Amino acid sequence: MPTENWQHIRLDVTGGVATVTLDRPEKLNALTFGAYADLRDLLAELSRSRAVRALVLAGEGRGFCSGGDVDEIIGATLGMDTGRLLDFNRMTGQVVRAVREAPFPVIAAVHGVAAGAGAVLALAADFRVADPSARFAFLFTRVGLSGGDMGAAYLLPRVVGLGHATRLLMLGEPVRAPEAERIGLISLMADEGRADTAAQDLARRLADGPALAHAQTKALLTAELDMPLAAAVELDASTQALLMNSSDYAEFHAAFTEKRPPEWQGR
Amino acid sequence: MPTENWQHIRLDVTGGVATVTLDRPEKLNALTFGAYADLRDLLAELSRSRAVRALVLAGEGRGFCSGGDVDEIIGATLGMDTGRLLDFNRMTGQVVRAVREAPFPVIAAVHGVAAGAGAVLALAADFRVADPSARFAFLFTRVGLSGGDMGAAYLLPRVVGLGHATRLLMLGEPVRAPEAERIGLISLMADEGRADTAAQDLARRLADGPALAHAQTKALLTAELDMPLAAAVELDASTQALLMNSSDYAEFHAAFTEKRPPEWQGR
Amino acid sequence: MPTENWQHIRLDVTGGVATVTLDRPEKLNALTFGAYADLRDLLAELSRSRAVRALVLAGEGRGFCSGGDVDEIIGATLGMDTGRLLDFNRMTGQVVRAVREAPFPVIAAVHGVAAGAGAVLALAADFRVADPSARFAFLFTRVGLSGGDMGAAYLLPRVVGLGHATRLLMLGEPVRAPEAERIGLISLMADEGRADTAAQDLARRLADGPALAHAQTKALLTAELDMPLAAAVELDASTQALLMNSSDYAEFHAAFTEKRPPEWQGR
Repeated sequence: MPTENWQHIRLDVTGGVATVTLDRPEKLNALTFGAYADLRDLLAELSRSRAVRALVLAGEGRGFCSGGDVDEIIGATLGMDTGRLLDFNRMTGQVVRAVREAPFPVIAAVHGVAAGAGAVLALAADFRVADPSARFAFLFTRVGLSGGDMGAAYLLPRVVGLGHATRLLMLGEPVRAPEAERIGLISLMADEGRADTAAQDLARRLADGPALAHAQTKALLTAELDMPLAAAVELDASTQALLMNSSDYAEFHAAFTEKRPPEWQGR
Repeated sequence: MPTENWQHIRLDVTGGVATVTLDRPEKLNALTFGAYADLRDLLAELSRSRAVRALVLAGEGRGFCSGGDVDEIIGATLGMDTGRLLDFNRMTGQVVRAVREAPFPVIAAVHGVAAGAGAVLALAADFRVADPSARFAFLFTRVGLSGGDMGAAYLLPRVVGLGHATRLLMLGEPVRAPEAERIGLISLMADEGRADTAAQDLARRLADGPALAHAQTKALLTAELDMPLAAAVELDASTQALLMNSSDYAEFHAAFTEKRPPEWQGR
Repeated sequence: MPTENWQHIRLDVTGGVATVTLDRPEKLNALTFGAYADLRDLLAELSRSRAVRALVLAGEGRGFCSGGDVDEIIGATLGMDTGRLLDFNRMTGQVVRAVREAPFPVIAAVHGVAAGAGAVLALAADFRVADPSARFAFLFTRVGLSGGDMGAAYLLPRVVGLGHATRLLMLGEPVRAPEAERIGLISLMADEGRADTAAQDLARRLADGPALAHAQTKALLTAELDMPLAAAVELDASTQALLMNSSDYAEFHAAFTEKRPPEWQGR
């Protein structure tokens, strides 16, 4: 049975597009223990559902997400024993793994601040659609922690290169939209105030398109970061052989032959 | 014995530079089953030959290569059983592996369209020399297939970063020359209509230079994508120890001492 | 007992910042056998010391480092047997590993030429602070050797992408400051003549900050290049759990609560 109430998160699913909105605007969508757990569980539920073909992750209010709540989380972790500290840090990492392993593309719609865990959530997405107000800050060292949090030291060098990643994670300085675009951290720039709309448009296009092909593209991009070339080529071959039996591949050929647009079914 | 006739491919070998030209201009050099097989076999033959020290891969006519032929290949694969689908997709992947594993640098000379398998062939090359008319499009999702085809989901993130690679493979949109240069997909920009000439000049320079050093540089770049740092450093050490016994290394020192240009032998 | 005399190297340690200056300006800081050995041993000594929290690697005189000394090293290696060749090449590689594995950030302050082994030393650093006179040249093929020297074929693709890395290592052409900045090879641009000062400022900031957090950020960035995502997320979780027991993390919270700047202790 699907969960009906989430903590500081709104969920909407319309026509294959799930929109997950961080909804605690008075705190710049700061994440609590409950919000992390809910994101983890929500992504797991949506990943099992066949109803979702693209997901938008957005933030209500003035920014995307200011990261872990200083008051709630840092204070509480100071009193935790080793086992509970590990539990908490594994839970946040599971959110990132759930984003990377979800069988649909995830689009972060970023306006204003994406800081700390908020920056890593955006980083874990397949697309970062941002407007000019967006700024990313991997703040972890600023609170005395490692810049490698929730997979950031794995993901960021693979997105922007080791040089930029070292600078951003070590210093925790904000990266504003123009630099983020220049170094490859932003996927698509939207006009001021239009990040949500542009992310929805992209999600709609992905969900209405050959969604199984998109899902497999994501799965291969994720898996092949961790594979040698020969294994990657073999995985590609077996994936394409599989998809050559799909409805959408036959539909493409029929539409091409009949000189009409294909009607994608996503399977 | 070398093969004498190739399908839709022209071969020229002059002074250590092999030029492989996709030669089906009336179809924008679309690849057939025969052309894939011929590319695979040709690259294997040339890789065994000691006569080739650099290779240019070019396209006759209005563009570089429009990818797999829709009429011939998509239609035929719809009627194939699982084993034959795997055979076909492995064969295309073998072309990419042959490019990456060839013991000489491969230079793609790109003008006009490099689409689908044509984009991946260019991506697999060591250098992409392009003119302003070049545009790359990883079209696979547009036909209902995975963007990870022929190693693209392995190679592209390592060339342009995971963010750009996700966008290009998932959406299949064309990347024109200025963007391709900005994100690192083009190695060298040539003037309009001069991609072939610039590629030949580069190949000539590589073939006339310390070609064994170039070959080993390529081999290490390819291998070390899949290795931890400690192993890479050890591989570098044994490779340099080997090359310090080469004729070209001794020749460099003699030429330096005698204040004259070195006469490279490529061994 | 610490070593007191180093060959062609000056060492200064002040308030947690070690400054290692290549000091053979009449030869553009060309490296000799002794200098490589000294760099390896010096980095090992400093890495064991708790007194160093950041390190600047700089060059005296007109440039950063012109690489291995042609007269001394190339000439001598021509007369070496296989075992001694391996010993030498492993030693140079150990310098790069020592830079990457040092438990503190390393900042290369680059003005003028960083060529050959000098370019790789800068590449191995966590930050490259450069002024507009900086130029990098991976010259190895120019002397008949592999561009993969001292880990360059591992590191450079991970910093600038495989396309640029292939071009730079295969051709050995100089990369001037504007291009180096554009492709992500320079971390921070300084004004003309100010690379050393800017590097010292950055080192001071790192050493006076949460230095244990910086050290762990570096260690994770280094390790996670060679790890799959799931392992990286687990390593991040255990590292954060560890650092949540650190003095600096508690100090951040106390300072935040008391609305004052934190007083970092680096542990």
